[in-house]
Amino acid sequence: MDIGVIGLGRMGGNIVRRLMDGGHRCAVFDVNPQAVADLAKEGATPAASIEELVAALPAPRAVWVMLPEGKITGDAIATLGETLAPGDVVIDGGNSFYKDDIRRAAELAEKQVMFVDAGTSGGIWGRERGYCLMIGGDEEVVRRLDPIFATLAPGRGEIPPTPGREARDPRVEQGYMRCGPVGAGHFVKMVHNGIEYGLMQAYAEGFDVLRSKGSAELPEDRRYQIDVADVAELWRRGSVVSSWLLDLTAIALADDPKLDGFAGRVADSGEGRWTIEAAIEEAVPVDVLATALFARFRSRVDNSFADRILSAMRRQFGGHAEAPAGVGETKKVRT
Amino acid sequence: MDIGVIGLGRMGGNIVRRLMDGGHRCAVFDVNPQAVADLAKEGATPAASIEELVAALPAPRAVWVMLPEGKITGDAIATLGETLAPGDVVIDGGNSFYKDDIRRAAELAEKQVMFVDAGTSGGIWGRERGYCLMIGGDEEVVRRLDPIFATLAPGRGEIPPTPGREARDPRVEQGYMRCGPVGAGHFVKMVHNGIEYGLMQAYAEGFDVLRSKGSAELPEDRRYQIDVADVAELWRRGSVVSSWLLDLTAIALADDPKLDGFAGRVADSGEGRWTIEAAIEEAVPVDVLATALFARFRSRVDNSFADRILSAMRRQFGGHAEAPAGVGETKKVRT
Amino acid sequence: MDIGVIGLGRMGGNIVRRLMDGGHRCAVFDVNPQAVADLAKEGATPAASIEELVAALPAPRAVWVMLPEGKITGDAIATLGETLAPGDVVIDGGNSFYKDDIRRAAELAEKQVMFVDAGTSGGIWGRERGYCLMIGGDEEVVRRLDPIFATLAPGRGEIPPTPGREARDPRVEQGYMRCGPVGAGHFVKMVHNGIEYGLMQAYAEGFDVLRSKGSAELPEDRRYQIDVADVAELWRRGSVVSSWLLDLTAIALADDPKLDGFAGRVADSGEGRWTIEAAIEEAVPVDVLATALFARFRSRVDNSFADRILSAMRRQFGGHAEAPAGVGETKKVRT
Amino acid sequence: MDIGVIGLGRMGGNIVRRLMDGGHRCAVFDVNPQAVADLAKEGATPAASIEELVAALPAPRAVWVMLPEGKITGDAIATLGETLAPGDVVIDGGNSFYKDDIRRAAELAEKQVMFVDAGTSGGIWGRERGYCLMIGGDEEVVRRLDPIFATLAPGRGEIPPTPGREARDPRVEQGYMRCGPVGAGHFVKMVHNGIEYGLMQAYAEGFDVLRSKGSAELPEDRRYQIDVADVAELWRRGSVVSSWLLDLTAIALADDPKLDGFAGRVADSGEGRWTIEAAIEEAVPVDVLATALFARFRSRVDNSFADRILSAMRRQFGGHAEAPAGVGETKKVRT
Repeated sequence: MDIGVIGLGRMGGNIVRRLMDGGHRCAVFDVNPQAVADLAKEGATPAASIEELVAALPAPRAVWVMLPEGKITGDAIATLGETLAPGDVVIDGGNSFYKDDIRRAAELAEKQVMFVDAGTSGGIWGRERGYCLMIGGDEEVVRRLDPIFATLAPGRGEIPPTPGREARDPRVEQGYMRCGPVGAGHFVKMVHNGIEYGLMQAYAEGFDVLRSKGSAELPEDRRYQIDVADVAELWRRGSVVSSWLLDLTAIALADDPKLDGFAGRVADSGEGRWTIEAAIEEAVPVDVLATALFARFRSRVDNSFADRILSAMRRQFGGHAEAPAGVGETKKVRT
Repeated sequence: MDIGVIGLGRMGGNIVRRLMDGGHRCAVFDVNPQAVADLAKEGATPAASIEELVAALPAPRAVWVMLPEGKITGDAIATLGETLAPGDVVIDGGNSFYKDDIRRAAELAEKQVMFVDAGTSGGIWGRERGYCLMIGGDEEVVRRLDPIFATLAPGRGEIPPTPGREARDPRVEQGYMRCGPVGAGHFVKMVHNGIEYGLMQAYAEGFDVLRSKGSAELPEDRRYQIDVADVAELWRRGSVVSSWLLDLTAIALADDPKLDGFAGRVADSGEGRWTIEAAIEEAVPVDVLATALFARFRSRVDNSFADRILSAMRRQFGGHAEAPAGVGETKKVRT
Repeated sequence: MDIGVIGLGRMGGNIVRRLMDGGHRCAVFDVNPQAVADLAKEGATPAASIEELVAALPAPRAVWVMLPEGKITGDAIATLGETLAPGDVVIDGGNSFYKDDIRRAAELAEKQVMFVDAGTSGGIWGRERGYCLMIGGDEEVVRRLDPIFATLAPGRGEIPPTPGREARDPRVEQGYMRCGPVGAGHFVKMVHNGIEYGLMQAYAEGFDVLRSKGSAELPEDRRYQIDVADVAELWRRGSVVSSWLLDLTAIALADDPKLDGFAGRVADSGEGRWTIEAAIEEAVPVDVLATALFARFRSRVDNSFADRILSAMRRQFGGHAEAPAGVGETKKVRT
Repeated sequence: MDIGVIGLGRMGGNIVRRLMDGGHRCAVFDVNPQAVADLAKEGATPAASIEELVAALPAPRAVWVMLPEGKITGDAIATLGETLAPGDVVIDGGNSFYKDDIRRAAELAEKQVMFVDAGTSGGIWGRERGYCLMIGGDEEVVRRLDPIFATLAPGRGEIPPTPGREARDPRVEQGYMRCGPVGAGHFVKMVHNGIEYGLMQAYAEGFDVLRSKGSAELPEDRRYQIDVADVAELWRRGSVVSSWLLDLTAIALADDPKLDGFAGRVADSGEGRWTIEAAIEEAVPVDVLATALFARFRSRVDNSFADRILSAMRRQFGGHAEAPAGVGETKKVRT
């Protein structure tokens, strides 16, 4: 079918390619004309503006927005609202906050433009591997877009089927799912990313325990020099902790076993934060997910005020001086 | 080759079967004679005691111990120490504490009996899927046992190779690894299980957030009724959080979507605890791993003393009564 | 001076009493006429409605609102906005969300009615002990209300002065402080309560460790039977952990050493939740404060879905049955 | 009475002074002769060795050991074991691990030398404020030492009595307590310090949230510039979070409001670690206490391996670059 795609970055560009590989016709727009030109060479219809993109599509139109969440996405959707016709549909494939979806869908509904949120996981591997799609919106509209979702999703692949799913929605096993009404797709994607933070932090802590077992700060007879790159590879086979994140860790460690190329300042995106807020709204304890988020905050701060408060208290009640700088001397400090 | 196996429970029995499938000859012993008889029917050489098992093996002998960690394993290894001859080797495939390994290896060494620890992951799926083996011990002894490890391990399978590993130990890609000297295998297995707890808890929290989004305690217009069994299945395909643990979760949820068959009293084994202690010894922060362990402790307690302390304090300073019983009314309580 | 007080519950009633003890004239209103009548007997001017209360006060008026946060407080302030005259001031002494303050202040400002938020700590002890006041609002308006704040606050008392504060705002040492513009008072009060949760949880966990050291689940030679009521009392004297919360804990434990009168279902109020959200907005790690909040969530749930997910996973990969019910048997379970 | 004191550092020296102020006669020894000489000038009997100190005391002797825990304390107690006579008693007032107490007491018992552990809280303020004493040992021996404990403890002071304690051990209200047999004193002291870590971390996080609310990384209209030194002072009066640790925080912040004099590398002592291990032994969840310990570990590490693992994973799945250095730019980073 025909579809417009706005936002041709790392994710958007590959989505267009996967759609065209699947036989769909794509009209494309990005503020960066080079990104538009590149895809035009690969067969997409270039557009110099959202208006031009809309004009290039047959009605009823479908436009996939793949932009950074927040104001940028909001502005694009607002422009679409002004440009599209009744019966057209906007799909937000980015990482928008689900409450923004609900608000934007209500605004579009005033003009009889439909809205679908499609949380999209897969990162830079998605073009080849397919994208896992978590979709929110009216069932009928979602059905209409089925050819798009079916193309973008990974499909069954060689993943062994789960017993007992015979009577269930077959789309799910193809890698896409209507999770509920508008916002439900991004809600599920949000929690997906919250879980992702927790998983990543569990591996990170475990590998740190393995590696620090070789630290010169331990007594010599208590050390093991464990090759963590080999361990990551090992666990990919037959272990309980095998996962795609572990596959990636094995790749990263094979390439740079000490990870000297990284400073460890870890960014976080909105979803990790919103997951905690959603959990608080529901009164569900999420100790691991919150801790994983806070570890990222902490990773970006030197000499935190909180830590300095602790040092100040310690000096007050015990006359204790601070531990001196230098990991080598201080990691195991106890006074 | 020939090998003795002591301990024929869920893990031990299947290890014998996988070894025999691989062409090895197994002498077997268990305190439960039925377990011995069953495997004898499948081709193993039955033994009525450790002594008989040792007698049934040609020198130099290899005996795999697959027993609950602690005194039971210790007693079996002590008996082996009294029974085996110089040059024989004991393999502890159970979940022993790595410091126990070091002590036991030293005791066996007095009699020139060798010791190898082989942390074994794979659970009840291992017979078919193979066992991921984390091995500690003298390189030469580990090499001698290579046919055993190669049979038990999963092998390369269809798992895509990791780029950049060409110059590295090829055993790792078969699913077994010599991690270091005695104890290093169980140390790596211990951390493996510590990570496993963290991963499990991340999924558990996330699925709780999804499910509780449909709770009657939320205002109606803030609810989504999300099919968590479908979400688990969905994420197996193309998502960042796909993993073997997720595959299992999808199976469990397809079978019992509300998990009504479970009370949620979650056991913990030694490894989760020892991982935290190891991290403390190394001064490595393990917030997620510790939190995941504590969640299990908490799952087994009703009306914890800690919580009652909180209630008592609240009554003292604010005259607050406790929240009444009944999840339905109390989950979102704020007073 | 003259002041109106709306909301005569546990906090509001005692605030009126402390104000009248300090020589102020109070007009009072509550939806519960008995609360009004009781205070009228003690010398307050009763009012049967907000309008009547406003009419009973000389201009420029000051009205202290002491109601549950949320819609109830919002409605009362809206009614005041319709009733008061330019130059009058509303003080919200409840536990409102600081972002609500900012919005409400803006609405009142349209009618030239001023707004001050006064986060009030002290609980049921405040009448006698005084209230710690965290105030937000225009400096000039706050100054005008100084007699009120000075009366409600605890004053210097016998608390030893902090060296180096000579050049600083003397009001602070009296127990009240203008923290900043509108909302700043409730923001500081919010964080105060967030800290309170963390402090309470630290004590609760520690006392649980002390008490559980006597548990029959430990080997007999590893137990101590520690009198936790005595320990709470002991630490009040000369220890680093002495605090008012500990004083209260000592009272509670002296009265009911096993806390059998409590089920441990611990309510939470808005502040604990908002503190975490504020921290997330600032990207500040708050592991302890979040954990303390989640412990309260957890205290109110039996058989959490998260825990059942864990059990379900464990059955899948290891064939493990759940730990049986009964704390006595399960607390130390490791399988 | 007569008492020997070994170890004349910050704590030991002041303990001698408080004892002498209370009319006791002290023989003193330290490896640093200057410390001995200083106290000799103040009236103590100097000793040049443990043997000399023992010789200077009348039988039955009491010797207080106030040394760093571990080998130093162990060696001193071993020497005392060789030097003292049956009926003498060793008091370990340091921060020893309670399992070491049990072992050492058994060794001393072979020579009929008694052992008492006396966990001592109070820091550098103890001389003036008194020391809170948590004592383990035989009741009879503890009674014999009562004059010592009564002098060192703070006494009732002006702290309001707790109702309902009339029938309880009056020593507790003086600030010293026999907590149980050998080791129980240090066990209680250990948990005391574990709680201390949790309390400190709660304050630290809360003050960080207050201070970061003024950060230039927040949109200007969301900032408050809150004077945290004033807030710390304010909360000392009438608030729920008042405590001695808060008093000390107020002193530190009045002196250095931005805490520029601290780097925030926070040491930890054994007790915080052992508390977590004790909790794990008891299967008691201690999320806050563990988190507080881990925050200290984290404070001493730059570019942790765990964080670099996260960055490496993020690059693999999303092509994400790391957040750039510089708190100013990165604290709120979300990508």
